[in-house]
Amino acid sequence: LTEQTPLFPSVAIIGFGFIGGSLGLAVKQRWPSAVVIAIDQKPVLERALRMRAADLVGEQLELAADASLVVLAAPVLANIEVLRRLPEAMSGNAVVTDVGSTKAATVAAAAELPERFQFVGGHPLAGGAVGGIGEARAELFEGRPWLLTPDGSTDALALSSITAFIEALGGAPVNMAPDAHDRMVAYLSHLPQLVVTALMHVVGEAVGADRLALAGAGLRDTTRLASSPAGIWRDIAATNPGQVSQAIAALIDVLGRLRTQVARPDADFDELFASARRWKETLDGN
Amino acid sequence: LTEQTPLFPSVAIIGFGFIGGSLGLAVKQRWPSAVVIAIDQKPVLERALRMRAADLVGEQLELAADASLVVLAAPVLANIEVLRRLPEAMSGNAVVTDVGSTKAATVAAAAELPERFQFVGGHPLAGGAVGGIGEARAELFEGRPWLLTPDGSTDALALSSITAFIEALGGAPVNMAPDAHDRMVAYLSHLPQLVVTALMHVVGEAVGADRLALAGAGLRDTTRLASSPAGIWRDIAATNPGQVSQAIAALIDVLGRLRTQVARPDADFDELFASARRWKETLDGN
Repeated sequence: LTEQTPLFPSVAIIGFGFIGGSLGLAVKQRWPSAVVIAIDQKPVLERALRMRAADLVGEQLELAADASLVVLAAPVLANIEVLRRLPEAMSGNAVVTDVGSTKAATVAAAAELPERFQFVGGHPLAGGAVGGIGEARAELFEGRPWLLTPDGSTDALALSSITAFIEALGGAPVNMAPDAHDRMVAYLSHLPQLVVTALMHVVGEAVGADRLALAGAGLRDTTRLASSPAGIWRDIAATNPGQVSQAIAALIDVLGRLRTQVARPDADFDELFASARRWKETLDGN
Repeated sequence: LTEQTPLFPSVAIIGFGFIGGSLGLAVKQRWPSAVVIAIDQKPVLERALRMRAADLVGEQLELAADASLVVLAAPVLANIEVLRRLPEAMSGNAVVTDVGSTKAATVAAAAELPERFQFVGGHPLAGGAVGGIGEARAELFEGRPWLLTPDGSTDALALSSITAFIEALGGAPVNMAPDAHDRMVAYLSHLPQLVVTALMHVVGEAVGADRLALAGAGLRDTTRLASSPAGIWRDIAATNPGQVSQAIAALIDVLGRLRTQVARPDADFDELFASARRWKETLDGN
């Protein structure tokens, strides 16, 4: 690729962890002349400079004052707090997006921004919620879906700019409504995480450490997500409580019916297992 | 290894699938002069002969008449049916064991055997419940735990013979009471299987095929067990309903509390996530 004029000459990334840092690397790789501004805490920023993932670094939001694109890449509740402070910190116009795992609450908070800001909600599906700047890599977004959640008030030019920006980084933009997004991730991501966490806790407490040693590969694979940190999930639940709650309720309902079946002498699991198997084939076929 | 006199000169294996077939191969490898008798349906038996996993094959239980060791390696309910028919089919003495995933029901059925049979319940923890004779291999049991469930009525000589037999095949015998075994596997094996099946069904139905394509590696890993066949789980549930039901109830209870937490503005997942993480470290450290 020969260098082209950057779509956004200066990109401020607030929260420079795994996703934010990877985005910094990706922007610098795609448009070496673009200025990447990283806003985070000192140890992270030192690492960002060493990795050449950012050109300007600092702890204060005011460093983003002249950015043409602002990317909120902290946990969701912190992103919402940044949205509140943005009008004071920035003097000019800017396109603003985020990379959070839930969208409705962030989109609602962004609706309060003055008109000089054009917000487009985003959620790159690229790697897990774990990992810091140390694991960031420029190729993270290549070939991966990047969900965008425009609504009736979204600026069309901002949406097309962000879409082009994502495509230039190798990502595949997919548009959906904020509520539809949050319902989808409640099932695809939040429910599996919470269920695996609950399962690992229940199994460990029931059998104890000695007998846990007798577990097979099945339990190990099933519980891979069980070492996720709680912090990020607190934010996710806080900003998507209705959908997550409904998803948990749907699973409890099926488990309750399974429990009833188990107690019957003519227990019939065929339909449930057949359904699970079909969906698993669909999932793995993708 | 130089060949030694076989611990059991003739071993009848009833149900010649993945476990039964692997056992046949392992016995022939360890003691070439031992006679392995395979009892199953014709297509399986033809394959058993081609693989040299058995010396004598047939569909009738009577072929086991003179065996010194009988291994029940069919699904659990079929094993229990074989136990009922064994006294008529066999004329002499024999040590009898099984390789089923639940133990209390089989041990109880074995208590009805005449005194010339010495039963020791067994459960090799070697590979999943899936896979037929085609995937059988002699090394399956090497370095893997092989649970034995003697109780007050177990013949001491039969127990020491089976223990030596397992050790000769490279397995690691571990004794536990039948009820303790069934409680343990309800948590280590049956609950994860049922939960993953329920989860895959709920997620698939909620999001549909198109959006399932947006799922990440987390959901794929979590649901690896979701393609298990229903048949074997019907037997497991039928012979371990109390423990499986309690395990499901324990998980429903934790999920219910999670759901309550999600709805609170000060939702606190720290304790649950910390517990899951500790148990996951214990599990993976093994």
